Amino acid sequence: MGPQHVTREAAHALRTVDYVLAFAKGQADPLLEVRAEVCRAYGDPPLVVVSDPPRDRDDPDDYARAVHDWHEARVTAHLRVLDERPGDVAMLVWGDPSLYDSTLRIVEAMAQRVDLEVDVTPGISAPQLLAARHRIVLHEVGRPVHVTTGRRLREAIEQGQDNLVVMLNRTLDLAGLEDWRIWWGANLGTPSEELISGRVGDVLRELEEARERARAAAGWVMDLYLLRHR
Amino acid sequence: MGPQHVTREAAHALRTVDYVLAFAKGQADPLLEVRAEVCRAYGDPPLVVVSDPPRDRDDPDDYARAVHDWHEARVTAHLRVLDERPGDVAMLVWGDPSLYDSTLRIVEAMAQRVDLEVDVTPGISAPQLLAARHRIVLHEVGRPVHVTTGRRLREAIEQGQDNLVVMLNRTLDLAGLEDWRIWWGANLGTPSEELISGRVGDVLRELEEARERARAAAGWVMDLYLLRHR
Ligand SMILES: C[S@@+](CC[C@H](N)C(=O)[O-])C[C@H]1O[C@@H](n2cnc3c(N)ncnc32)[C@H](O)[C@@H]1O
Ligand SMILES: C[S@@+](CC[C@H](N)C(=O)[O-])C[C@H]1O[C@@H](n2cnc3c(N)ncnc32)[C@H](O)[C@@H]1O
Repeated sequence: MGPQHVTREAAHALRTVDYVLAFAKGQADPLLEVRAEVCRAYGDPPLVVVSDPPRDRDDPDDYARAVHDWHEARVTAHLRVLDERPGDVAMLVWGDPSLYDSTLRIVEAMAQRVDLEVDVTPGISAPQLLAARHRIVLHEVGRPVHVTTGRRLREAIEQGQDNLVVMLNRTLDLAGLEDWRIWWGANLGTPSEELISGRVGDVLRELEEARERARAAAGWVMDLYLLRHR
Repeated sequence: MGPQHVTREAAHALRTVDYVLAFAKGQADPLLEVRAEVCRAYGDPPLVVVSDPPRDRDDPDDYARAVHDWHEARVTAHLRVLDERPGDVAMLVWGDPSLYDSTLRIVEAMAQRVDLEVDVTPGISAPQLLAARHRIVLHEVGRPVHVTTGRRLREAIEQGQDNLVVMLNRTLDLAGLEDWRIWWGANLGTPSEELISGRVGDVLRELEEARERARAAAGWVMDLYLLRHR
Protein backbone atom coordinates (compact mmCIF):
# COMPACT_ATOMS: atom_id res chain seq x y z
CA MET A 1 0.00 0.00 0.00
CA GLY A 2 1.99 2.86 -1.36
CA PRO A 3 2.66 4.80 -4.58
CA GLN A 4 3.04 1.56 -6.58
CA HIS A 5 -0.64 0.73 -6.03
CA VAL A 6 -2.03 4.01 -7.27
CA THR A 7 -4.06 3.73 -10.51
CA ARG A 8 -3.74 6.16 -13.39
CA GLU A 9 -7.17 7.53 -12.57
CA ALA A 10 -6.18 8.20 -8.94
CA ALA A 11 -2.84 9.68 -10.03
CA HIS A 12 -4.68 12.05 -12.34
CA ALA A 13 -6.99 13.09 -9.51
CA LEU A 14 -4.01 13.83 -7.23
CA ARG A 15 -2.30 15.90 -9.91
CA THR A 16 -5.36 18.07 -10.46
CA VAL A 17 -6.75 18.77 -6.98
CA ASP A 18 -6.03 21.93 -4.99
CA TYR A 19 -4.97 19.95 -1.94
CA VAL A 20 -5.16 16.59 -0.17
CA LEU A 21 -6.96 16.27 3.12
CA ALA A 22 -5.72 13.59 5.48
CA PHE A 23 -6.46 12.80 9.05
CA ALA A 24 -3.81 11.55 11.38
CA LYS A 25 -3.64 10.20 14.87
CA GLY A 26 -1.25 12.95 15.83
CA GLN A 27 1.63 14.22 13.67
CA ALA A 28 3.56 11.03 14.36
CA ASP A 29 0.94 8.77 12.73
CA PRO A 30 3.06 6.32 10.71
CA LEU A 31 0.42 6.02 7.98
CA LEU A 32 0.67 9.75 7.39
CA GLU A 33 4.14 9.25 5.98
CA VAL A 34 2.74 6.81 3.38
CA ARG A 35 0.15 9.42 2.39
CA ALA A 36 2.88 12.06 2.08
CA GLU A 37 4.88 9.69 -0.09
CA VAL A 38 1.90 9.10 -2.38
CA CYS A 39 1.39 12.86 -2.73
CA ARG A 40 5.05 13.46 -3.54
CA ALA A 41 4.89 10.77 -6.24
CA TYR A 42 1.87 12.30 -7.97
CA GLY A 43 2.20 16.02 -8.51
CA ASP A 44 2.97 16.91 -4.90
CA PRO A 45 -0.32 18.58 -3.95
CA PRO A 46 -0.30 20.28 -0.52
CA LEU A 47 -1.19 17.83 2.25
CA VAL A 48 -3.47 19.33 4.87
CA VAL A 49 -3.62 17.26 8.02
CA VAL A 50 -6.69 17.08 10.24
CA SER A 51 -6.03 15.64 13.65
CA ASP A 52 -8.16 12.60 14.12
CA PRO A 53 -10.41 13.03 17.17
CA PRO A 54 -9.71 10.38 19.82
CA ARG A 55 -11.93 7.32 19.65
CA ASP A 56 -13.23 5.38 22.61
CA ARG A 57 -11.80 1.94 21.91
CA ASP A 58 -12.79 0.54 25.28
CA ASP A 59 -16.49 0.29 24.68
CA PRO A 60 -16.97 -3.05 22.91
CA ASP A 61 -20.64 -3.17 23.90
CA ASP A 62 -21.53 -0.08 22.04
CA TYR A 63 -19.23 -0.27 19.07
CA ALA A 64 -21.68 1.32 16.63
CA ARG A 65 -22.30 4.27 18.95
CA ALA A 66 -18.59 4.87 19.57
CA VAL A 67 -17.96 4.81 15.82
CA HIS A 68 -20.84 7.19 15.26
CA ASP A 69 -19.59 9.81 17.73
CA TRP A 70 -16.12 9.58 16.32
CA HIS A 71 -17.50 10.16 12.82
CA GLU A 72 -19.41 13.23 13.91
CA ALA A 73 -16.25 14.75 15.33
CA ARG A 74 -14.39 13.93 12.13
CA VAL A 75 -17.08 15.49 9.98
CA THR A 76 -16.90 18.73 11.92
CA ALA A 77 -13.11 18.80 11.72
CA HIS A 78 -13.20 18.29 7.96
CA LEU A 79 -15.82 20.92 7.35
CA ARG A 80 -13.72 23.40 9.27
CA VAL A 81 -10.81 22.88 6.85
CA LEU A 82 -13.07 23.11 3.78
CA ASP A 83 -14.48 26.31 5.11
CA GLU A 84 -11.05 27.88 5.56
CA ARG A 85 -9.69 26.49 2.32
CA PRO A 86 -12.39 26.04 -0.30
CA GLY A 87 -11.40 24.16 -3.47
CA ASP A 88 -11.11 20.78 -5.13
CA VAL A 89 -10.00 18.34 -2.48
CA ALA A 90 -8.80 14.72 -2.49
CA MET A 91 -9.02 12.41 0.50
CA LEU A 92 -6.68 9.43 0.46
CA VAL A 93 -8.13 6.14 1.61
CA TRP A 94 -5.99 3.28 2.92
CA GLY A 95 -6.67 0.46 0.44
CA ASP A 96 -10.11 0.66 -1.11
CA PRO A 97 -12.96 2.80 0.25
CA SER A 98 -15.46 -0.07 -0.04
CA LEU A 99 -14.06 -2.14 2.86
CA TYR A 100 -13.97 -1.18 6.55
CA ASP A 101 -13.29 2.45 5.86
CA SER A 102 -15.18 5.46 7.15
CA THR A 103 -14.19 8.04 4.55
CA LEU A 104 -17.37 7.67 2.50
CA ARG A 105 -19.55 7.95 5.56
CA ILE A 106 -17.74 11.15 6.52
CA VAL A 107 -18.08 12.54 3.02
CA GLU A 108 -21.77 11.69 2.96
CA ALA A 109 -22.31 13.47 6.27
CA MET A 110 -20.34 16.47 4.94
CA ALA A 111 -22.50 16.52 1.79
CA GLN A 112 -25.59 16.75 3.97
CA ARG A 113 -24.31 19.98 5.45
CA VAL A 114 -22.56 21.67 2.52
CA ASP A 115 -22.85 21.45 -1.25
CA LEU A 116 -20.33 18.87 -2.52
CA GLU A 117 -19.73 16.99 -5.75
CA VAL A 118 -18.19 13.62 -4.91
CA ASP A 119 -16.18 11.21 -7.07
CA VAL A 120 -14.92 7.88 -5.73
CA THR A 121 -11.83 6.27 -7.23
CA PRO A 122 -11.24 2.60 -6.33
CA GLY A 123 -7.89 1.40 -5.00
CA ILE A 124 -6.09 -1.83 -4.13
CA SER A 125 -7.45 -3.37 -0.91
CA ALA A 126 -5.66 -5.49 1.67
CA PRO A 127 -7.46 -8.74 0.69
CA GLN A 128 -6.29 -8.30 -2.89
CA LEU A 129 -2.73 -7.69 -1.80
CA LEU A 130 -2.90 -10.75 0.46
CA ALA A 131 -4.14 -12.88 -2.44
CA ALA A 132 -1.51 -11.49 -4.81
CA ARG A 133 1.34 -12.18 -2.40
CA HIS A 134 0.23 -15.74 -1.80
CA ARG A 135 -0.69 -16.10 -5.51
CA ILE A 136 -4.12 -17.42 -4.64
CA VAL A 137 -7.75 -16.91 -5.54
CA LEU A 138 -9.82 -16.05 -2.46
CA HIS A 139 -12.26 -18.95 -2.94
CA GLU A 140 -12.51 -22.36 -4.54
CA VAL A 141 -13.95 -22.66 -8.06
CA GLY A 142 -17.44 -21.10 -8.15
CA ARG A 143 -17.68 -20.91 -4.35
CA PRO A 144 -18.21 -17.91 -2.02
CA VAL A 145 -15.83 -15.88 0.11
CA HIS A 146 -17.09 -14.36 3.34
CA VAL A 147 -15.33 -11.17 4.40
CA THR A 148 -15.62 -10.33 8.06
CA THR A 149 -13.86 -8.94 11.13
CA GLY A 150 -11.89 -10.70 13.86
CA ARG A 151 -14.68 -9.75 16.24
CA ARG A 152 -17.23 -11.66 14.16
CA LEU A 153 -15.11 -14.66 13.14
CA ARG A 154 -16.72 -17.08 15.58
CA GLU A 155 -20.25 -16.19 14.61
CA ALA A 156 -19.42 -16.72 10.93
CA ILE A 157 -17.93 -20.14 11.63
CA GLU A 158 -20.96 -21.14 13.67
CA GLN A 159 -23.07 -20.10 10.71
CA GLY A 160 -21.19 -22.62 8.57
CA GLN A 161 -18.74 -20.39 6.71
CA ASP A 162 -15.70 -22.38 5.61
CA ASN A 163 -13.85 -19.80 3.54
CA LEU A 164 -13.29 -16.45 5.21
CA VAL A 165 -11.22 -13.31 4.88
CA VAL A 166 -10.73 -11.91 8.37
CA MET A 167 -9.76 -8.28 8.86
CA LEU A 168 -9.46 -5.84 11.76
CA ASN A 169 -7.81 -8.31 14.14
CA ARG A 170 -6.74 -6.96 17.48
CA THR A 171 -5.36 -10.36 18.37
CA LEU A 172 -5.19 -13.69 16.56
CA ASP A 173 -7.68 -15.98 18.17
CA LEU A 174 -7.52 -19.25 16.25
CA ALA A 175 -8.03 -21.77 19.07
CA GLY A 176 -9.95 -24.82 17.87
CA LEU A 177 -9.19 -24.05 14.22
CA GLU A 178 -5.91 -25.98 14.12
CA ASP A 179 -6.99 -28.05 11.13
CA TRP A 180 -7.99 -25.13 8.94
CA ARG A 181 -5.64 -23.67 6.34
CA ILE A 182 -4.51 -20.09 6.70
CA TRP A 183 -2.92 -17.57 4.35
CA TRP A 184 -1.85 -14.66 6.50
CA GLY A 185 -0.14 -11.34 5.87
CA ALA A 186 0.86 -8.27 7.87
CA ASN A 187 1.88 -4.76 6.83
CA LEU A 188 1.45 -5.76 3.20
CA GLY A 189 3.03 -3.52 0.61
CA THR A 190 5.34 -1.93 3.16
CA PRO A 191 8.96 -2.69 4.12
CA SER A 192 7.85 -4.63 7.21
CA GLU A 193 5.60 -7.02 5.24
CA GLU A 194 5.27 -10.55 6.63
CA LEU A 195 3.64 -13.59 5.01
CA ILE A 196 2.82 -17.04 6.40
CA SER A 197 0.67 -19.89 5.10
CA GLY A 198 -0.08 -23.45 6.09
CA ARG A 199 -2.15 -25.52 8.48
CA VAL A 200 -3.14 -23.30 11.42
CA GLY A 201 -1.85 -25.75 14.02
CA ASP A 202 1.52 -25.96 12.28
CA VAL A 203 2.15 -22.27 11.67
CA LEU A 204 0.50 -20.51 14.59
CA ARG A 205 3.61 -19.95 16.62
CA GLU A 206 5.61 -18.78 13.61
CA LEU A 207 2.74 -16.47 12.74
CA GLU A 208 2.62 -14.85 16.16
CA GLU A 209 6.35 -14.24 15.90
CA ALA A 210 6.00 -12.70 12.45
CA ARG A 211 3.22 -10.46 13.74
CA GLU A 212 5.46 -9.15 16.54
CA ARG A 213 8.32 -8.72 14.07
CA ALA A 214 6.10 -6.55 11.84
CA ARG A 215 5.00 -4.49 14.83
CA ALA A 216 8.56 -4.04 16.03
CA ALA A 217 9.83 -3.03 12.59
CA ALA A 218 7.07 -0.54 11.74
CA GLY A 219 5.80 0.57 15.13
CA TRP A 220 2.31 -0.70 14.12
CA VAL A 221 0.81 -3.87 12.73
CA MET A 222 -2.16 -4.43 10.42
CA ASP A 223 -2.83 -7.99 9.44
CA LEU A 224 -5.47 -10.11 7.76
CA TYR A 225 -5.91 -13.68 6.62
CA LEU A 226 -7.82 -16.09 4.48
CA LEU A 227 -9.04 -19.07 6.51
CA ARG A 228 -10.32 -22.19 4.74
CA HIS A 229 -11.66 -25.43 6.11
CA ARG A 230 -9.82 -28.60 5.04
CA MET B 1 -12.02 -1.69 -16.41
CA GLY B 2 -9.55 -0.15 -18.77
CA PRO B 3 -6.26 1.77 -18.85
CA GLN B 4 -7.47 4.19 -16.14
CA HIS B 5 -7.55 1.37 -13.58
CA VAL B 6 -3.99 0.17 -14.12
CA THR B 7 -1.68 0.75 -11.15
CA ARG B 8 1.85 2.07 -11.46
CA GLU B 9 3.17 -1.35 -10.51
CA ALA B 10 1.16 -3.03 -13.29
CA ALA B 11 2.12 -0.31 -15.79
CA HIS B 12 5.77 -0.92 -14.99
CA ALA B 13 5.32 -4.66 -15.53
CA LEU B 14 3.70 -4.07 -18.93
CA ARG B 15 6.49 -1.74 -20.01
CA THR B 16 9.19 -4.26 -19.16
CA VAL B 17 7.85 -7.63 -20.36
CA ASP B 18 8.73 -9.21 -23.69
CA TYR B 19 5.10 -9.74 -24.59
CA VAL B 20 1.57 -10.04 -23.24
CA LEU B 21 -0.31 -13.29 -23.48
CA ALA B 22 -4.09 -13.08 -23.73
CA PHE B 23 -6.75 -15.60 -24.44
CA ALA B 24 -9.79 -14.72 -26.44
CA LYS B 25 -13.02 -16.37 -27.38
CA GLY B 26 -12.16 -15.98 -31.05
CA GLN B 27 -10.58 -12.90 -32.61
CA ALA B 28 -13.86 -11.00 -32.20
CA ASP B 29 -13.82 -11.27 -28.38
CA PRO B 30 -14.86 -7.78 -27.26
CA LEU B 31 -12.75 -7.95 -24.13
CA LEU B 32 -9.68 -8.47 -26.29
CA GLU B 33 -10.00 -4.89 -27.51
CA VAL B 34 -9.82 -3.64 -23.91
CA ARG B 35 -6.65 -5.67 -23.41
CA ALA B 36 -5.16 -4.22 -26.60
CA GLU B 37 -6.03 -0.74 -25.38
CA VAL B 38 -4.29 -1.37 -22.06
CA CYS B 39 -1.17 -2.58 -23.89
CA ARG B 40 -1.12 0.46 -26.16
CA ALA B 41 -1.36 2.75 -23.14
CA TYR B 42 1.60 1.16 -21.34
CA GLY B 43 4.61 0.68 -23.58
CA ASP B 44 2.78 -1.20 -26.32
CA PRO B 45 4.21 -4.69 -25.72
CA PRO B 46 3.29 -7.27 -28.40
CA LEU B 47 -0.04 -8.94 -27.64
CA VAL B 48 -0.02 -12.66 -28.37
CA VAL B 49 -3.49 -14.12 -28.49
CA VAL B 50 -4.28 -17.69 -27.49
CA SER B 51 -7.67 -18.88 -28.64
CA ASP B 52 -9.67 -19.90 -25.65
CA PRO B 53 -10.72 -23.54 -25.96
CA PRO B 54 -14.51 -23.88 -26.02
CA ARG B 55 -16.11 -24.59 -22.67
CA ASP B 56 -19.08 -26.79 -22.04
CA ARG B 57 -21.51 -24.31 -20.55
CA ASP B 58 -24.44 -26.69 -20.61
CA ASP B 59 -23.35 -28.97 -17.85
CA PRO B 60 -24.58 -27.33 -14.64
CA ASP B 61 -24.41 -30.62 -12.75
CA ASP B 62 -20.73 -31.00 -13.22
CA TYR B 63 -19.54 -27.45 -13.16
CA ALA B 64 -16.26 -28.22 -11.42
CA ARG B 65 -15.41 -30.93 -13.95
CA ALA B 66 -16.25 -28.74 -16.95
CA VAL B 67 -14.08 -25.95 -15.54
CA HIS B 68 -11.27 -28.42 -14.92
CA ASP B 69 -11.22 -29.73 -18.48
CA TRP B 70 -11.33 -26.24 -19.86
CA HIS B 71 -8.36 -25.28 -17.68
CA GLU B 72 -6.34 -28.24 -18.88
CA ALA B 73 -6.88 -27.20 -22.49
CA ARG B 74 -5.91 -23.62 -21.64
CA VAL B 75 -2.75 -24.74 -19.88
CA THR B 76 -1.64 -26.71 -22.90
CA ALA B 77 -2.39 -23.80 -25.24
CA HIS B 78 -0.36 -21.41 -23.08
CA LEU B 79 2.60 -23.73 -22.75
CA ARG B 80 2.70 -24.04 -26.53
CA VAL B 81 3.13 -20.27 -26.87
CA LEU B 82 5.78 -20.11 -24.13
CA ASP B 83 7.66 -22.89 -25.85
CA GLU B 84 7.70 -21.05 -29.18
CA ARG B 85 8.38 -17.65 -27.64
CA PRO B 86 10.36 -17.92 -24.43
CA GLY B 87 10.73 -14.72 -22.40
CA ASP B 88 9.22 -12.54 -19.73
CA VAL B 89 5.47 -12.68 -20.19
CA ALA B 90 2.53 -10.76 -18.72
CA MET B 91 -1.01 -12.11 -18.58
CA LEU B 92 -3.74 -9.52 -18.21
CA VAL B 93 -6.55 -10.38 -15.82
CA TRP B 94 -9.99 -8.81 -16.04
CA GLY B 95 -10.35 -7.00 -12.70
CA ASP B 96 -8.37 -8.63 -9.92
CA PRO B 97 -6.96 -12.17 -10.08
CA SER B 98 -8.29 -13.03 -6.60
CA LEU B 99 -11.99 -13.19 -7.59
CA TYR B 100 -13.62 -15.66 -9.98
CA ASP B 101 -10.68 -15.75 -12.32
CA SER B 102 -8.81 -18.78 -13.58
CA THR B 103 -5.50 -17.18 -14.55
CA LEU B 104 -3.72 -18.15 -11.35
CA ARG B 105 -4.91 -21.74 -11.62
CA ILE B 106 -3.59 -21.88 -15.16
CA VAL B 107 -0.27 -20.38 -14.15
CA GLU B 108 0.03 -22.82 -11.26
CA ALA B 109 -0.60 -25.74 -13.60
CA MET B 110 1.97 -24.33 -16.03
CA ALA B 111 4.50 -24.00 -13.21
CA GLN B 112 4.07 -27.68 -12.45
CA ARG B 113 5.22 -28.56 -15.94
CA VAL B 114 7.86 -25.93 -16.70
CA ASP B 115 10.14 -23.76 -14.60
CA LEU B 116 8.43 -20.41 -13.99
CA GLU B 117 8.92 -17.47 -11.68
CA VAL B 118 5.54 -15.89 -10.97
CA ASP B 119 4.63 -12.40 -9.74
CA VAL B 120 1.03 -11.37 -9.13
CA THR B 121 0.02 -7.71 -9.36
CA PRO B 122 -3.38 -6.79 -7.91
CA GLY B 123 -5.92 -4.82 -9.92
CA ILE B 124 -9.28 -3.10 -9.47
CA SER B 125 -12.11 -5.65 -9.19
CA ALA B 126 -15.74 -5.33 -10.27
CA PRO B 127 -17.09 -5.15 -6.66
CA GLN B 128 -14.79 -2.20 -5.97
CA LEU B 129 -15.90 -0.43 -9.10
CA LEU B 130 -19.53 -1.07 -8.17
CA ALA B 131 -18.98 0.40 -4.70
CA ALA B 132 -17.09 3.40 -6.10
CA ARG B 133 -19.82 4.22 -8.62
CA HIS B 134 -22.56 4.03 -6.01
CA ARG B 135 -20.25 5.72 -3.46
CA ILE B 136 -20.94 3.03 -0.88
CA VAL B 137 -19.12 0.77 1.51
CA LEU B 138 -19.93 -2.89 0.82
CA HIS B 139 -21.17 -3.58 4.37
CA GLU B 140 -22.62 -1.79 7.36
CA VAL B 141 -20.25 -0.63 10.14
CA GLY B 142 -18.21 -3.59 11.42
CA ARG B 143 -20.40 -6.16 9.62
CA PRO B 144 -19.51 -8.83 7.03
CA VAL B 145 -19.94 -8.95 3.27
CA HIS B 146 -20.56 -12.31 1.61
CA VAL B 147 -19.30 -12.55 -1.97
CA THR B 148 -20.91 -15.26 -4.05
CA THR B 149 -22.26 -16.22 -7.47
CA GLY B 150 -25.76 -15.94 -8.93
CA ARG B 151 -25.87 -19.71 -8.87
CA ARG B 152 -25.35 -19.78 -5.11
CA LEU B 153 -27.43 -16.76 -4.11
CA ARG B 154 -30.36 -18.77 -2.79
CA GLU B 155 -28.23 -21.03 -0.64
CA ALA B 156 -26.53 -18.00 0.91
CA ILE B 157 -29.85 -16.39 1.74
CA GLU B 158 -31.13 -19.60 3.29
CA GLN B 159 -27.98 -19.62 5.40
CA GLY B 160 -28.96 -16.21 6.76
CA GLN B 161 -26.73 -13.88 4.75
CA ASP B 162 -28.24 -10.42 4.57
CA ASN B 163 -25.49 -8.51 2.81
CA LEU B 164 -24.21 -10.06 -0.40
CA VAL B 165 -22.18 -9.20 -3.47
CA VAL B 166 -23.46 -11.39 -6.29
CA MET B 167 -21.32 -12.00 -9.38
CA LEU B 168 -21.44 -14.25 -12.44
CA ASN B 169 -25.14 -13.77 -13.10
CA ARG B 170 -26.54 -15.40 -16.19
CA THR B 171 -29.95 -13.99 -15.39
CA LEU B 172 -31.30 -11.82 -12.60
CA ASP B 173 -33.41 -14.02 -10.38
CA LEU B 174 -34.64 -11.81 -7.56
CA ALA B 175 -38.16 -13.19 -7.04
CA GLY B 176 -39.19 -13.02 -3.39
CA LEU B 177 -36.50 -10.44 -2.61
CA GLU B 178 -38.63 -7.41 -3.45
CA ASP B 179 -38.03 -5.77 -0.07
CA TRP B 180 -34.26 -5.99 -0.18
CA ARG B 181 -32.12 -3.07 -1.33
CA ILE B 182 -29.96 -3.47 -4.41
CA TRP B 183 -27.01 -1.56 -5.83
CA TRP B 184 -26.47 -2.92 -9.33
CA GLY B 185 -24.03 -2.20 -12.14
CA ALA B 186 -23.29 -3.56 -15.61
CA ASN B 187 -20.29 -3.15 -17.91
CA LEU B 188 -18.64 -0.95 -15.30
CA GLY B 189 -15.74 1.16 -16.43
CA THR B 190 -16.75 0.85 -20.08
CA PRO B 191 -18.79 3.16 -22.34
CA SER B 192 -21.90 0.98 -21.92
CA GLU B 193 -21.86 1.20 -18.11
CA GLU B 194 -25.27 1.10 -16.39
CA LEU B 195 -26.10 1.74 -12.73
CA ILE B 196 -29.32 1.25 -10.76
CA SER B 197 -30.07 1.26 -7.04
CA GLY B 198 -33.15 1.11 -4.87
CA ARG B 199 -35.67 -1.31 -3.42
CA VAL B 200 -35.65 -4.47 -5.54
CA GLY B 201 -39.40 -4.42 -6.09
CA ASP B 202 -39.28 -0.82 -7.26
CA VAL B 203 -36.33 -1.00 -9.65
CA LEU B 204 -36.48 -4.52 -11.06
CA ARG B 205 -38.11 -3.62 -14.36
CA GLU B 206 -35.83 -0.63 -14.89
CA LEU B 207 -32.88 -2.87 -14.07
CA GLU B 208 -33.81 -5.51 -16.62
CA GLU B 209 -34.09 -2.77 -19.23
CA ALA B 210 -30.71 -1.33 -18.31
CA ARG B 211 -29.19 -4.80 -18.53
CA GLU B 212 -30.52 -5.23 -22.08
CA ARG B 213 -29.35 -1.73 -22.98
CA ALA B 214 -25.81 -2.62 -21.85
CA ARG B 215 -25.91 -5.84 -23.84
CA ALA B 216 -27.20 -4.08 -26.93
CA ALA B 217 -24.60 -1.31 -26.71
CA ALA B 218 -21.57 -3.53 -26.10
CA GLY B 219 -22.55 -6.85 -27.59
CA TRP B 220 -22.01 -8.45 -24.13
CA VAL B 221 -23.09 -7.82 -20.59
CA MET B 222 -21.32 -8.42 -17.27
CA ASP B 223 -23.16 -7.32 -14.19
CA LEU B 224 -23.04 -7.64 -10.42
CA TYR B 225 -24.86 -6.25 -7.42
CA LEU B 226 -24.81 -5.68 -3.72
CA LEU B 227 -27.99 -6.98 -2.08
CA ARG B 228 -28.87 -5.96 1.48
CA HIS B 229 -31.81 -6.89 3.66
CA ARG B 230 -34.00 -4.04 4.99
C1 LIG C 1 -9.85 -0.12 8.78
S1 LIG C 1 -9.55 -1.52 7.76
C2 LIG C 1 -9.20 -0.76 6.21
C3 LIG C 1 -9.20 -1.71 5.02
C4 LIG C 1 -8.87 -1.00 3.73
N1 LIG C 1 -9.92 -0.06 3.36
C5 LIG C 1 -8.62 -1.98 2.60
O1 LIG C 1 -9.17 -1.79 1.50
O2 LIG C 1 -7.84 -2.91 2.76
C6 LIG C 1 -7.99 -1.99 8.36
C7 LIG C 1 -7.77 -3.48 8.29
O3 LIG C 1 -7.43 -3.84 6.95
C8 LIG C 1 -6.39 -4.78 6.95
N2 LIG C 1 -5.21 -4.13 6.35
C9 LIG C 1 -5.15 -2.88 5.87
N3 LIG C 1 -3.94 -2.62 5.38
C10 LIG C 1 -3.21 -3.74 5.53
C11 LIG C 1 -1.88 -4.10 5.19
N4 LIG C 1 -1.06 -3.24 4.58
N5 LIG C 1 -1.46 -5.34 5.51
C12 LIG C 1 -2.29 -6.22 6.11
N6 LIG C 1 -3.55 -5.93 6.45
C13 LIG C 1 -4.01 -4.70 6.16
C14 LIG C 1 -6.17 -5.18 8.39
O4 LIG C 1 -7.02 -6.27 8.67
C15 LIG C 1 -6.61 -3.96 9.12
O5 LIG C 1 -7.02 -4.25 10.44
C1 LIG D 1 -15.24 -14.30 -14.29
S1 LIG D 1 -15.71 -13.06 -13.14
C2 LIG D 1 -14.26 -12.06 -13.09
C3 LIG D 1 -14.22 -11.08 -11.95
C4 LIG D 1 -12.96 -10.24 -11.98
N1 LIG D 1 -11.77 -11.05 -11.72
C5 LIG D 1 -13.02 -9.08 -11.00
O1 LIG D 1 -12.07 -8.90 -10.24
O2 LIG D 1 -14.00 -8.35 -11.01
C6 LIG D 1 -16.81 -12.16 -14.11
C7 LIG D 1 -17.93 -11.52 -13.30
O3 LIG D 1 -17.42 -10.36 -12.67
C8 LIG D 1 -18.37 -9.32 -12.73
N2 LIG D 1 -17.80 -8.27 -13.61
C9 LIG D 1 -16.60 -8.28 -14.18
N3 LIG D 1 -16.40 -7.15 -14.86
C10 LIG D 1 -17.48 -6.40 -14.72
C11 LIG D 1 -17.87 -5.11 -15.17
N4 LIG D 1 -17.05 -4.37 -15.93
N5 LIG D 1 -19.08 -4.64 -14.82
C12 LIG D 1 -19.90 -5.37 -14.04
N6 LIG D 1 -19.59 -6.60 -13.59
C13 LIG D 1 -18.40 -7.10 -13.92
C14 LIG D 1 -19.64 -9.92 -13.31
O4 LIG D 1 -20.41 -10.42 -12.23
C15 LIG D 1 -19.08 -11.05 -14.13
O5 LIG D 1 -20.04 -12.08 -14.32
